[in-house]
Parts: sequence; C-alpha cells; structure tokens
Amino acid sequence: MKKGSKFGTHRVIEPKGILPQPAKVISNDMQIFDNEILIDVQTLNIDSASFTQIKEQAGGDEAKIKEIMLGIVKSFGKHKNPVTGSGGMLIGTVAEIGPALEGKTDLKVGDKIATLVSLSLTPLVIEEILEIRIDIDQVDIKGKAILFESGIYAKIPTDIPENLALSVLDVAGAPAQTAKLVKPGDTVLVIGGAGKSGMLCLYEAKKRAGVTGKVICLQHSDSARDRIMDAHLADHYITADATDAVDVLGKVEAVTNGEMCDIVINCVNVENTEMSSILATKDDGLVYFFSMATSFTKAALGAEGVGKDVQMIVGNGYTKGHAEITLQIMRESETLRKIYEDLYA
Amino acid sequence: MKKGSKFGTHRVIEPKGILPQPAKVISNDMQIFDNEILIDVQTLNIDSASFTQIKEQAGGDEAKIKEIMLGIVKSFGKHKNPVTGSGGMLIGTVAEIGPALEGKTDLKVGDKIATLVSLSLTPLVIEEILEIRIDIDQVDIKGKAILFESGIYAKIPTDIPENLALSVLDVAGAPAQTAKLVKPGDTVLVIGGAGKSGMLCLYEAKKRAGVTGKVICLQHSDSARDRIMDAHLADHYITADATDAVDVLGKVEAVTNGEMCDIVINCVNVENTEMSSILATKDDGLVYFFSMATSFTKAALGAEGVGKDVQMIVGNGYTKGHAEITLQIMRESETLRKIYEDLYA
Ligand SMILES: NC(=O)c1ccc[n+]([C@@H]2O[C@H](COP(=O)([O-])OP(=O)(O)OC[C@H]3O[C@@H](n4cnc5c(N)ncnc54)[C@H](OP(=O)(O)O)[C@@H]3O)[C@@H](O)[C@H]2O)c1
Ligand SMILES: NC(=O)c1ccc[n+]([C@@H]2O[C@H](COP(=O)([O-])OP(=O)(O)OC[C@H]3O[C@@H](n4cnc5c(N)ncnc54)[C@H](OP(=O)(O)O)[C@@H]3O)[C@@H](O)[C@H]2O)c1
Repeated sequence: MKKGSKFGTHRVIEPKGILPQPAKVISNDMQIFDNEILIDVQTLNIDSASFTQIKEQAGGDEAKIKEIMLGIVKSFGKHKNPVTGSGGMLIGTVAEIGPALEGKTDLKVGDKIATLVSLSLTPLVIEEILEIRIDIDQVDIKGKAILFESGIYAKIPTDIPENLALSVLDVAGAPAQTAKLVKPGDTVLVIGGAGKSGMLCLYEAKKRAGVTGKVICLQHSDSARDRIMDAHLADHYITADATDAVDVLGKVEAVTNGEMCDIVINCVNVENTEMSSILATKDDGLVYFFSMATSFTKAALGAEGVGKDVQMIVGNGYTKGHAEITLQIMRESETLRKIYEDLYA
Repeated sequence: MKKGSKFGTHRVIEPKGILPQPAKVISNDMQIFDNEILIDVQTLNIDSASFTQIKEQAGGDEAKIKEIMLGIVKSFGKHKNPVTGSGGMLIGTVAEIGPALEGKTDLKVGDKIATLVSLSLTPLVIEEILEIRIDIDQVDIKGKAILFESGIYAKIPTDIPENLALSVLDVAGAPAQTAKLVKPGDTVLVIGGAGKSGMLCLYEAKKRAGVTGKVICLQHSDSARDRIMDAHLADHYITADATDAVDVLGKVEAVTNGEMCDIVINCVNVENTEMSSILATKDDGLVYFFSMATSFTKAALGAEGVGKDVQMIVGNGYTKGHAEITLQIMRESETLRKIYEDLYA
C-alpha cells in the first residue's frame, strides 16, 4: 500500500507541489493510501454560494444540475465549483481505514461521519445522483470519497436527525467564531441573518452580547421578519439589499442612533456586499466575512477607499470545537431546532 | 456646481448603486462636483500585483505597457487592473477644491499630496505617459484625477524625497498593522520579507517583538540575504518558494524548533501562497494577508482543509496614522532609508 502525505499532497495532479484545496485537479482513484479513510458517501451538502451558482447556470433544471455536478467531479476529481471556488461537505459511512492510522483515529469501519473539510479538497467519485433536495442544497448520491490524515470530521450524533446535523455542521465555523468574537454590550449586525449560518450567528450573538448588547438582523426581504423576531433571535430587523451599501449605511445608522456596529458578520451568498459590511462597522470595529462570495481585494481596497479603520477577518471554516458548539445549539434551543427542521432537514 | 456624495457614488456608471471601488466603470469627467478635489497628477505608483501582471501581459515591452494602462483607464475611468482588481496610488498637486469642502479640509490649491486611497476607485484621465520606471512600478504622466470627500491623503513631507515618499506610502498599511499586531516575545514570519512592504514589516516586527522575540524573513531567492541580515532586519533568513507550502512548513519548523509562528505576514505579489502562510502559523496564531494576490476562498477553505485554527486578517490598506508611522521609519532608520532610496526611489 502506498504511503500518503498527511495533507493529501500525494493526490495532487495539477499544479504539482501545492495542496489539494488550491489544486485544480486531484486524483479520485478510490484505492486508498496507507493513511487515508475511504467513505461510502450518502449525501453531499453543497456550499450555498456554489449551489446558488449551479442552480442559476442550470436555469433550475434538475437534469442540468446533475450534469454540471458530474462534470465538475469528472474534471477535477473533487466537487470544487470552478466559478465560486467553494465546496461543501458530506455525510457517509467509514468503509476502510488505512493501516497507518491505527491507534491514531477513533473511527472504525461502519461509523457514520460528516466530513468537516471542504468538498473542494476531497477526492470524490459520484456513481449516481439519486435525489436532489434543491431547497436545502443537499444531494443524495451513490459514491465514494477519501478523507486525508489531516482531515477533520464529526461522528453523527444519535439524538439529532442526520440531515439536520449535516445542514448545521456545514456552517459550524460561523456560530463558533461568533461565540468567540462577541462580548457583552456589543452591537452586532448579521447580514443575511435569516439564512442557515445567519440564524446560528444571531443566536450566539444574542447570547454573548447579553441584555446590554444589541443584535440586528439584515435581510433583503421582509418574509423572514416574523420568524426571526418571534424566536427572539434579534432586537432589530432591517430589510435591505446588502449590495446597496449606501442604503444599508442609512438604515444601520437609524437603528444604532448613528453609532454603527462593533461587529458585523457577513453570512450572505451573493457578491458585492463587502462595502455594506464595512460601512456598517464602527471605526475600530470588526467585520467577520463568512460568505464565500467575499472578494479579498474588494474588502481590502474598499475599506481603504473610504478611510475606514476596521479589522476584517477571513471566515476560517474551522475553529476548535465548532461542531460541538453548533450541535449544542440544536439541543439547547427548541425554537431554533424546529425552525431548522422545517427549513433545512 | 453639482452636489456629490461623500463616497463618490455620484460617479458610478456601472453597476449603479454600488461604491466606486467595486464598480466596474466610473465617470472620469474632470469637471468637479462641489465636494471633490481636482489633482494635477505627476506620478502613478501602480500596485505591485497589478504592475507585475501588466508587465507579464506586455512581455516587458514599454509601448505595450503604455497601451494596456491607457486601455484600462479608457474602459473603466480609473486604473483598476481587471485581472488583479487592484490599483495603486498617485502623487500630484491640488488644482481645485470644491466649495463644499471649505473649512473642512486643510488643503489649499498648490499643495503637493499623495492620495492614500486606491487608484482602483480614483477617477483618472491620462493625457500622456511620460516615463515608466519599470523596476519601481512608478509611471510619470500628464493627467488629472479626482479625490472624493471621504478620500484620504498625505501632504508630501519636505524632508523626504518625493519618489521615496510615494513608494513607501503605497504600502503604509502593512508596517502600521504590524506595529499594532506584534507583541514582545512573538515569533514573526514575513513572507516576501525582502520586498517593499516586507522590509518595513520586518523593521516594525523587530522593534515590537523585541529581544525575546524572533523575526524571520522568507524570500524565494538568496540574493537579498546580505541586505536583510546586515541591516539587522531579521534573526533568520529562509530561502523558499512561498507557493510550495510543504517546503515552507519544513523550513519554518526547523528555524522555530517545531513551534511555528505567532504571526505570519504575507507580503508577496504572487498567487497561491495562502497555504504556506497558514501552515507556518501556530494553532491560535494569526495570519495577516497584505498581498493583493490573496484569494479569499483559498484562505478560508485552505485553513479548514488542514484543520488549522488560525485567525486570518484581510490587509486593510488603511489604519489610523499609517502614513505617519511609515514616513517615520524613513526618518528613524538611516540604514533602511538608504536601502529604499537605492531600490525604490
Ligand atoms: N467560510 C466558510 O468556511 C463557509 C462554510 C460554509 C458556507 N459558507 C458561506 O456562507 C454563506 C452563507 O451560507 P448559508 O448556508 O448560511 O446560506 P443561506 O442559508 O443561503 O443564507 C444566505 C442568506 O443571505 C440572504 N441574502 C442573499 N442575498 C442578499 C442580499 N442581497 N441582501 C440581504 N440578504 C441577502 C439570503 O436571503 P434569501 O434566502 O431571502 O435569498 C439568506 O438569508 C455562503 O456564502 C457560503 O458560501 C462559508
Ligand atoms: N492591502 C493593501 O492595501 C495593499 C496596498 C499596497 C500593496 N499591497 C500588496 O502587497 C504585496 C506586496 O507589495 P510590495 O510593494 O511589497 O511588492 P514587492 O516589493 O514586489 O515585494 C514582493 C516580495 O515577494 C517576493 N516573492 C515573490 N514571489 C515569491 C515566492 N514565490 N516566494 C517567496 N517570495 C516571493 C518578492 O521577491 P522577488 O523580488 O525576488 O521576486 C518580493 O520580495 C502586493 O501583492 C501588493 O499588491 C497591498
């Protein structure tokens, strides 16, 4: 059996020498290396920015969506959307464990896991697409995938439905980072706050900002207002298009008496929302970009362009304990769990 | 005279409603609005990532470089490189001040200033390209530009040569952020440390990390070793290609006894260096991406992909006092000033 590198570089075909995530093409040969784990895949959870793009390209047509997805995996050996650069994650059953991992992993064959590394670096073969749950970005397949030695995963808990676990684990980085960033008394704005990652962020923000803080949900339609306010996820609900920075600026000014926000968390799935995020932040405040549609240069030069001294953080999909923190929310809040079961499972 | 918005949105042609930086096309009509400042431009300092791309596209040919630059400004009304998305800055003389700025600005007609907002949002007309200083990314032109009300600038000091001031002000955000981030005792790696922003970061890092800290310069050729070590800008000099993450990992491990770095500052001007930066950082450490060639998704998904809990910061070009901090380095360190006069002025 061939020896693999911890990070999976042995699978990189093009360009050589770089890691599997930035790589264009990787090998999806399902013969495992000595430190790899083979997974029988059950469901893919496609990243929201990626699935939105695919649905658009397909004009909403299911057969076309299948064709595009199969094409991506065939070309690149992984489900890395060439337009958005993003992936998603998967749920499946451990089928084989490389001998070099013995004693190093707590997994055994037959365990059901969710991978917490992006599909954009995961060797994947799709034999057949069985079902597309178009509204929740989930796709059931018959297929296999590989987890590298450095790859992180979560065992699927037994007290939470599988599809629900998959849905919330996909965005687990966001609420976990929110929990670390928000301090008592903070004014926090969540842009795209009624989405899947957004509501989890609102929940954590409310908890951390406490009674002296202020949590604001910004959403481009009014349709989620009752859901958000009835669940006490936010103190204020703003209806605005996040790509219209000047309008957002005015509305956030109104709600914060001109003081603006200590922390802005960007959870949208569309482009051109960097400036709204920056303008809504106080000088010396912080913007956390969880959205994969964020452009590095638009953020860096946008802030400079308006002379705004804000710290801007790239939403690392991983932070210690992120899976536990997120599953815990589903256990802790019956209200939120019901909402997520209705919407995302 | 027409009334303008603070952020210059009145100049945006396409797409409507967004700000001048993310906008594709803006108006470079040189008739000013009531809150704008007209500048007679003397020199453009093209962003390093942008100029590298233009030089490549032109195959190093000066006439082609001119053609590309004129084409960019003609198409977009500003010098925003369509490939890299980045700009640069300019030096020039105040020609006209909109009446709405009276009492609000300390500028007067005839003042020589450097704009500290990116060229990627600055309305610009190039009448003629007079001289290209190809090695230092500077281009003398005959032309005009507009500074918006929210635009920041620095008056050119009289004790520092103009070209030198322009060169260092272009990258002023980097050393100023370094000064804020680095604490005594930190191990700091500057990737691309022998470049223009890199050496300023090394200087500030050495000063802040102090005798108990460790500062490492990483550069892809050995040619700058003597310059860096003789000037005591770093404790260690690593020669490596920053796009080869696995090689960088090994070399940083060696120099730090496997402890890796508290802070990694990325100052290169090429793509695919996110993973080196992430792998060189300690768990719970911090990566500061100043490089405009940084990809948001590669950083976010790359860190997740190797299960690394690091904070990643988008290099905001602006932070309070950045111009003063950077010019001060040129006054404080005769050694560094000599190096910059030789290389960049
Ligand atoms: N950094 C990471 O590691 C990581 C991991 C996973 C996902 N992500 C990213 O996180 C983002 C959010 O994911 P998600 O699963 O939470 O997506 P989601 O459920 O689709 O949520 C997106 C939200 O943004 C709202 N929105 C869209 N356009 C808007 C606009 N112009 N103005 C205001 N609101 C707008 C949407 O409203 P409507 O529903 O009304 O359109 C929705 O509520 C995506 O970009 C995804 O790629 C990042
Ligand atoms: N965030 C902001 O607001 C802002 C503002 C201005 C500039 N920037 C960005 O900052 C970056 C640096 O600008 P600069 O003016 O300092 O550029 P620079 O002087 O050209 O420095 C780049 C350095 O990176 C080194 N380098 C290039 N490829 C490398 C590799 N593969 N491995 C190791 N080192 C490598 C270069 O070495 P060689 O010279 O040997 O090639 C050089 O020392 C650029 O990307 C620029 O766009 C950002």
